[in-house]
Amino acid sequence: MNERADLRAQIEFLREMDRLKQVLRQSTLMDGSRRENSAEHSWHVALAALVLAPQANTPLDVCRVIQMLLIHDIVEIDAGDTFAYDAVRRLDQAAREEAAAQRLLGLLPGGQRGALAALWEEFEARSTPEAKFAHAVDRLIPVLQNCATHGGAWRTHGVDRGRVVQRVGPIEDGSTALWGYVAELLDDAVRQGFLEEAP
Amino acid sequence: MNERADLRAQIEFLREMDRLKQVLRQSTLMDGSRRENSAEHSWHVALAALVLAPQANTPLDVCRVIQMLLIHDIVEIDAGDTFAYDAVRRLDQAAREEAAAQRLLGLLPGGQRGALAALWEEFEARSTPEAKFAHAVDRLIPVLQNCATHGGAWRTHGVDRGRVVQRVGPIEDGSTALWGYVAELLDDAVRQGFLEEAP
Repeated sequence: MNERADLRAQIEFLREMDRLKQVLRQSTLMDGSRRENSAEHSWHVALAALVLAPQANTPLDVCRVIQMLLIHDIVEIDAGDTFAYDAVRRLDQAAREEAAAQRLLGLLPGGQRGALAALWEEFEARSTPEAKFAHAVDRLIPVLQNCATHGGAWRTHGVDRGRVVQRVGPIEDGSTALWGYVAELLDDAVRQGFLEEAP
Repeated sequence: MNERADLRAQIEFLREMDRLKQVLRQSTLMDGSRRENSAEHSWHVALAALVLAPQANTPLDVCRVIQMLLIHDIVEIDAGDTFAYDAVRRLDQAAREEAAAQRLLGLLPGGQRGALAALWEEFEARSTPEAKFAHAVDRLIPVLQNCATHGGAWRTHGVDRGRVVQRVGPIEDGSTALWGYVAELLDDAVRQGFLEEAP
């Protein structure tokens, strides 16, 4: 009986998750054809974690990184995507996302709820090697997208190099190698004129 | 030096992966608003594996299931999505996808190439418990989508219950519990008149 109830709850959760495909981010696909949604972004960063794990600063449990990245954005179903450079909406972002995590993970059976909430909080706290690396790949992919589209969301929103570095600098906490690569990309972007050095 | 070359290869692979977001499947989002792409589908099934793992017939390595599902559709970047009920295009599907796997995984550094190819082949061969369960969730989600849209792709393509059962029957090899749930959904669909019993 209980197992049957668990299955129904799990399916209900998965139906609700479908809505993440409708949450639009500021970044676009690499060819600039349209804005990206948070579900396909989540796939891309989970795959990036799998492939880039050898570049992490410390050996890590890549499974936990991937699981974190699969759920890291689900709160956007209720809270919406908060653009990394939107200072105003970022003020209450944590509270909005906390409430969303409560409601969405609350759809799951008791045992799983706690496990996934712990994983989501681990990502948010950014203190374990796994969480640091998860943040590193989560910040890497938008840089690749903005470079591929000659500025992309940076240009649209007038974001300069200093603000980008502030945002993506934590890549270094997860992977010095990745950070070295990204720093070069940003230098190139300034040189090519699609990222402003200062406002 | 080698590590730097590896990193460049990994990033190039991840750039190429972005194109999976442009491969459209026949199934739509649960609200029917648009067709789904293979990248967001891959996220959804990987998350489904994480959540539904307790329903598997045998205890399994859920990490490997998730990793399989993250890459199971990447071959569609070259080979396109082959609709489950398209008998003609399915004839040469294996050959097209094999060539795609060669090219795409060939972008990765040597060591990783083999590991991911083995994972992809394990999924295709469908003989391990992990591969069977991966196929089960991969077939479950489109059923939920077609039911949510009162027939969806089944109606569009005139697919009857017999053909659906043929397609999704292997869910049972991964999870008897899931299969029981799906069989009920199909009964309901017939009763409600959005799935034909026979052509």
